Amino acid sequence: MVHTISALVENHFGVLTRVAGLFASRGYNIQSLTVGPTEDETVSRMTIVVEGDDKIIDQVKKQLNKLIDTIKVIDLTGEDFVDRELLLIKVTASSKTRPDILQLTEVFKGSVVDIAPAVVTIEVSGNPKKIDAFIAMLKPYGVREMARTGRIALGRG
Amino acid sequence: MVHTISALVENHFGVLTRVAGLFASRGYNIQSLTVGPTEDETVSRMTIVVEGDDKIIDQVKKQLNKLIDTIKVIDLTGEDFVDRELLLIKVTASSKTRPDILQLTEVFKGSVVDIAPAVVTIEVSGNPKKIDAFIAMLKPYGVREMARTGRIALGRG
Repeated sequence: MVHTISALVENHFGVLTRVAGLFASRGYNIQSLTVGPTEDETVSRMTIVVEGDDKIIDQVKKQLNKLIDTIKVIDLTGEDFVDRELLLIKVTASSKTRPDILQLTEVFKGSVVDIAPAVVTIEVSGNPKKIDAFIAMLKPYGVREMARTGRIALGRG
Repeated sequence: MVHTISALVENHFGVLTRVAGLFASRGYNIQSLTVGPTEDETVSRMTIVVEGDDKIIDQVKKQLNKLIDTIKVIDLTGEDFVDRELLLIKVTASSKTRPDILQLTEVFKGSVVDIAPAVVTIEVSGNPKKIDAFIAMLKPYGVREMARTGRIALGRG
């Protein structure tokens, strides 16, 4: 089962190594991980998406809670939450294909962030399924490069 | 100086630990790190934003290049690149303040992703300065929670 775990941690160096190490030592590959600042600059929020057996994920969460840098761990799995991801994608675009690419971008409520004679770079945010669908639509045109942020999530209400 | 480093790595478990460890062992705190899938599912892209002395960052990049999982390391610093970040933010909103908050969201080209009687959750993407400005504008209303993805970046053209 895929778990989305949100953790508030002290913004110390080495935190990321310790957290990533907890998962790696159990052979779990993290599907995505983001770490960024919060409203309190001494605190960072990590969002970790990981697939694994519920029991073992439970153990990892317990150990995550025990780390000295950890303030709070929330497993959003099964809760009602909003998750979003951001994509930057650079696609081959000729004068022939550019209109189609721009139209797709509009449909997906994305925006063009850079344009050059042979390529277009587009930004789109949304839930991971929407991002996957957008990438699938652009593949036939030729994807040069892409970067995805990985998921961030907040509980609803 | 702030460096934005983009690295393509094999999607093996433990990669994140090794990369984070490289920075941590030198006492560098990573400002933000994202790791997400690319067009090739065996490959992940990491974007690391780190502040430090140019010489020592150079050494870290060399060591990053030597890791068995590393495919390519690009330091975008000084290059022409597009960088973007995504923010989810939950703000206190009464019937009195909601219209102001929604107007600000429109100005920053954000969108409302969830709404409840006393709170609004908003999604905004943009360069980190825009994100900072949006947070600063919302602070007076009361920020309940927020999550930032950290930066992703692609070279222009």
